[in-house]
Amino acid sequence: MRISIHQTHHTVAAFDDIFKYLKQAVGDSKEDTLHLLPELFLTGYPLQDLCLQRSFIDAYLEFQKEINDWSTSLQKQNTCFLFGGLDYQFCGDTDGVPRNIKNVIYKLIPGQKIEAIYTKKLLPNYDIFDEEKYFTKGDKTGVLNFCNHKIALLICEDMWHSSVHQIDPVSDLESLNQKFDLVVNLSASPFNLHKNDKRTQRSLEIANRLNAPYVYVNRVGGEDEILFDGNSFCVDGTKEVFNLKSFQQDMIELECPIYNGEKSLINSKIENTWEGLFSANLIDTQNGHIPKLKPLDDNLCQSIVDALCFGVQEYAKKSYFKKFVVALSGGLDSALVLALLKLSLKKGQELEAIFMPSQYTRDISYDASKEMCKRINIPMHVIPIMGAHNYFRDMFKEKVGESIEGLTDENIQSRLRGLLLYARSNQSDALVINTSNKSELAVGYSTIYGDSVGAISLLGDLYKSEVFDVSRYINKKYGEIIPVEIIDRPPSAELRADQEDTDSLPPYDRMDAILEGILSYRLSGKKLVELGHDPIEVETVLNLYRKTEYKRIQFCPIIKLKSKSFGFGYRVPITKDSTYYMKS
Amino acid sequence: MRISIHQTHHTVAAFDDIFKYLKQAVGDSKEDTLHLLPELFLTGYPLQDLCLQRSFIDAYLEFQKEINDWSTSLQKQNTCFLFGGLDYQFCGDTDGVPRNIKNVIYKLIPGQKIEAIYTKKLLPNYDIFDEEKYFTKGDKTGVLNFCNHKIALLICEDMWHSSVHQIDPVSDLESLNQKFDLVVNLSASPFNLHKNDKRTQRSLEIANRLNAPYVYVNRVGGEDEILFDGNSFCVDGTKEVFNLKSFQQDMIELECPIYNGEKSLINSKIENTWEGLFSANLIDTQNGHIPKLKPLDDNLCQSIVDALCFGVQEYAKKSYFKKFVVALSGGLDSALVLALLKLSLKKGQELEAIFMPSQYTRDISYDASKEMCKRINIPMHVIPIMGAHNYFRDMFKEKVGESIEGLTDENIQSRLRGLLLYARSNQSDALVINTSNKSELAVGYSTIYGDSVGAISLLGDLYKSEVFDVSRYINKKYGEIIPVEIIDRPPSAELRADQEDTDSLPPYDRMDAILEGILSYRLSGKKLVELGHDPIEVETVLNLYRKTEYKRIQFCPIIKLKSKSFGFGYRVPITKDSTYYMKS
Repeated sequence: MRISIHQTHHTVAAFDDIFKYLKQAVGDSKEDTLHLLPELFLTGYPLQDLCLQRSFIDAYLEFQKEINDWSTSLQKQNTCFLFGGLDYQFCGDTDGVPRNIKNVIYKLIPGQKIEAIYTKKLLPNYDIFDEEKYFTKGDKTGVLNFCNHKIALLICEDMWHSSVHQIDPVSDLESLNQKFDLVVNLSASPFNLHKNDKRTQRSLEIANRLNAPYVYVNRVGGEDEILFDGNSFCVDGTKEVFNLKSFQQDMIELECPIYNGEKSLINSKIENTWEGLFSANLIDTQNGHIPKLKPLDDNLCQSIVDALCFGVQEYAKKSYFKKFVVALSGGLDSALVLALLKLSLKKGQELEAIFMPSQYTRDISYDASKEMCKRINIPMHVIPIMGAHNYFRDMFKEKVGESIEGLTDENIQSRLRGLLLYARSNQSDALVINTSNKSELAVGYSTIYGDSVGAISLLGDLYKSEVFDVSRYINKKYGEIIPVEIIDRPPSAELRADQEDTDSLPPYDRMDAILEGILSYRLSGKKLVELGHDPIEVETVLNLYRKTEYKRIQFCPIIKLKSKSFGFGYRVPITKDSTYYMKS
Repeated sequence: MRISIHQTHHTVAAFDDIFKYLKQAVGDSKEDTLHLLPELFLTGYPLQDLCLQRSFIDAYLEFQKEINDWSTSLQKQNTCFLFGGLDYQFCGDTDGVPRNIKNVIYKLIPGQKIEAIYTKKLLPNYDIFDEEKYFTKGDKTGVLNFCNHKIALLICEDMWHSSVHQIDPVSDLESLNQKFDLVVNLSASPFNLHKNDKRTQRSLEIANRLNAPYVYVNRVGGEDEILFDGNSFCVDGTKEVFNLKSFQQDMIELECPIYNGEKSLINSKIENTWEGLFSANLIDTQNGHIPKLKPLDDNLCQSIVDALCFGVQEYAKKSYFKKFVVALSGGLDSALVLALLKLSLKKGQELEAIFMPSQYTRDISYDASKEMCKRINIPMHVIPIMGAHNYFRDMFKEKVGESIEGLTDENIQSRLRGLLLYARSNQSDALVINTSNKSELAVGYSTIYGDSVGAISLLGDLYKSEVFDVSRYINKKYGEIIPVEIIDRPPSAELRADQEDTDSLPPYDRMDAILEGILSYRLSGKKLVELGHDPIEVETVLNLYRKTEYKRIQFCPIIKLKSKSFGFGYRVPITKDSTYYMKS
């Protein structure tokens, strides 16, 4: 038996494209071949409420009917396609509301209707995952016989174990005491920076426990903030047999691998407690030093560059944009965003920068921005905001009778830039890419409707310290794209004279370590102080963090790089009594 | 035995206030009294990720310890308090990550430690509810013996039934075949307009099935978009024994009611399928007429006024604002928002309007706005935007070399207003209340960072047709607050000469009916046309709806009035292939 791995890349609900791919693959298939495609291949993932909307349901049922009509009309062939899809059951007839929606593996054999042969048992429901909201879990083990091979079936999360739900699909397979020739896992597993190692380690364990090679098929796609990286692979018990590409459609066909491991006594059932999935990415927490954020090494920096370039292009493609516009400030965040966009650029796409100086903008900001745009050969429009700024100051004095000062004055400048940036976006049909980083977001160091605007955020899951790491890496790897003055100068919002970020915030290296303790949900304020952080700095950071949910709730989608990020999976009430933050 | 119902109102995680209430209530208690307090009384609800954050966990564990120290120090008394709280179990010691978090009923008897006596079985996980994400469900029936009474225990959703999860706590109690003297349900049940009738109906059914009076205790609170209305009640089998107030703390103490019903053969297990909870609020769908949105009667209008006034005050209180500011346009939405705020105003609070005319603003807009502010006796600042508008037009031409036209020009005006409104908010420390309605949100008929700004939305769950209903009701009930010219004039954004909403959109009565079909998830485009809607109008609406998720994702919290609303419970991907909307 041969196996064929299809690491597919389709837009959610692009039924025409999906059908086209399937027809092509079936047409090209050889005899005695098992084809493996990702989880929910027929629909894409995540669907969220789409799977409850009548328009979607009707279109999907029609699509399924078309597949069956086509498949039954085909000439019989000994080839088998396994792909993910939804299996609806309704209250009453198919016009009724869905009673059960199952996340299943369909089997397609030419000449026959498709058949649901396995239902996902372990529905992930932590962080960004809401599968228990939509899907009904299965309770039957999945085993397929094809070409004299006995094939064990899993869908994505099934490879893990949850003591909370007392569900353990791998142990269920083990307890069948059968000799499997292959274990397959059809997945739609979101990317994060440290996930691949975890996946491979657990896969080796499963191969050893079930005495069979393990094939993992993952989809590719950028769905707003969530990326699917592909990276499909196979382990034969001791090593990887193949590993497909990251962030692009890929395929491989080969003879079914043979189990090469020894029966080992691994019994490390990893438990998926919610919080257990997240760990604080800190070093020096144990040895008496103040904890520090773990710096990003070159491999991680490259993954970040790949992920962000892929993610922003996916968003642009699906929103029908071919131009990008960035507000360049002379600071590092906007420079890194511009560099990433330049690296991501495809043929026929355009990128431009807008520089909007105020009376507080230093010369170095202009010079460095101009130099950067020159290096990457893109236009930079200069639109000063002093005139409008003064106009508003005067008008407020005249019309409202109160002068504009302090924070009000700073915010006006930031919002003027937001307005001009979006005017340019409207004018040139360009997608506005946000330039906020995770540290700023965490402490609300940005102006809502001002510098926080944008359609999608590239840096919203990177602390400022990590923005430095990635910037230096890019300069090392791709030539000095970002002028070194931008990297070396002290960070500043330039909204008043001589302003520096450290006027309001602790230095980023210390603040980011405090934030990682808090945002990983692992460390309380009290604990952070016990670990050696300065009590005043901890209080400053906690105080800013707890008061600024209202800004994060209106923020754009953030491309997710970590296991715990702001965005869809971060669900915290805006209003609450948070005085306890200061006590515990 | 006496029972005492405590319909409490505390901010989430306000441990000090909660403790104070408990101490007071225990101090005041008489012998032989069963005190009933809401679900998660000890923490508030919803908590979302808070219950995973180490700061919260540490503070809560400390709080529990304080309660136990205090309770054990009390003199023994035959009085019993039942209240909701969290019961944590950890991986390893209490420093570990939570393994299980249970939503339980605690029993407090003076002189003893508190004891968890029942764990919620049916965890709601649809729409805004994510309880399966955080909590581990119980599997034991809850029965308490106190004062020779046998008391059956339920927590909130337990009173319903889910065929999907095969969980039916009421049937579990029934199958014990015991004689209960009382059934109690401690709840934290969010408000929506049609919920009370459903609750009462089901409660009568439960009382009849279990042959016992049924007491329902609900909390009060406004948690961002979600309101808890209280409305605690008791049914004795045939009728309501009492019904506490809406949207305010309340209390009643009385002799334990006696079952007054006859054993009836009600067996209508209501099934909580996800979609089954929502229904399209339409009339005339069956009799050959084109479906229409069901108009709001006076009772519903009053509920809406009560809910919105309560909700906005809760948000303001918890965000520490005492002033409100609204951008008044001369249109009905902003006028209704202003009227609602005026009705909600408490002693010491201030309200002001800002009127920001452009060259397209008609005289009637100014006159009617001024008249309204006069009627409700609040200041109206007039800040014209023509000057700044022209300034930007000229600057763009000069600096970018392209003139500003069409949509770009319209959006600049809207964003100028957003900027000025927020400058005034910064300057006067006033909370900006958003003025968008549900129809606008659904079709994206607003400018992001422009007229869509605000901290919280009052009308985001009301279609434009319903904005008319509520406005007319307010004028009838509270004197003519809103000048009739504002209600009668054709809706217009006034962003270009002679603009009216119907230039871009179908008339609101027809559009709202189409939207309700779509947003209730019940009707596809094809079905809407079959029901008699104009195909062009359906296509227009669907086309605008599918393309505008990116606006809704950055919108502020919307006070929730309906069973299905935009906001936290509405989860739809921004990017997807939505061509199927046009086909099915």
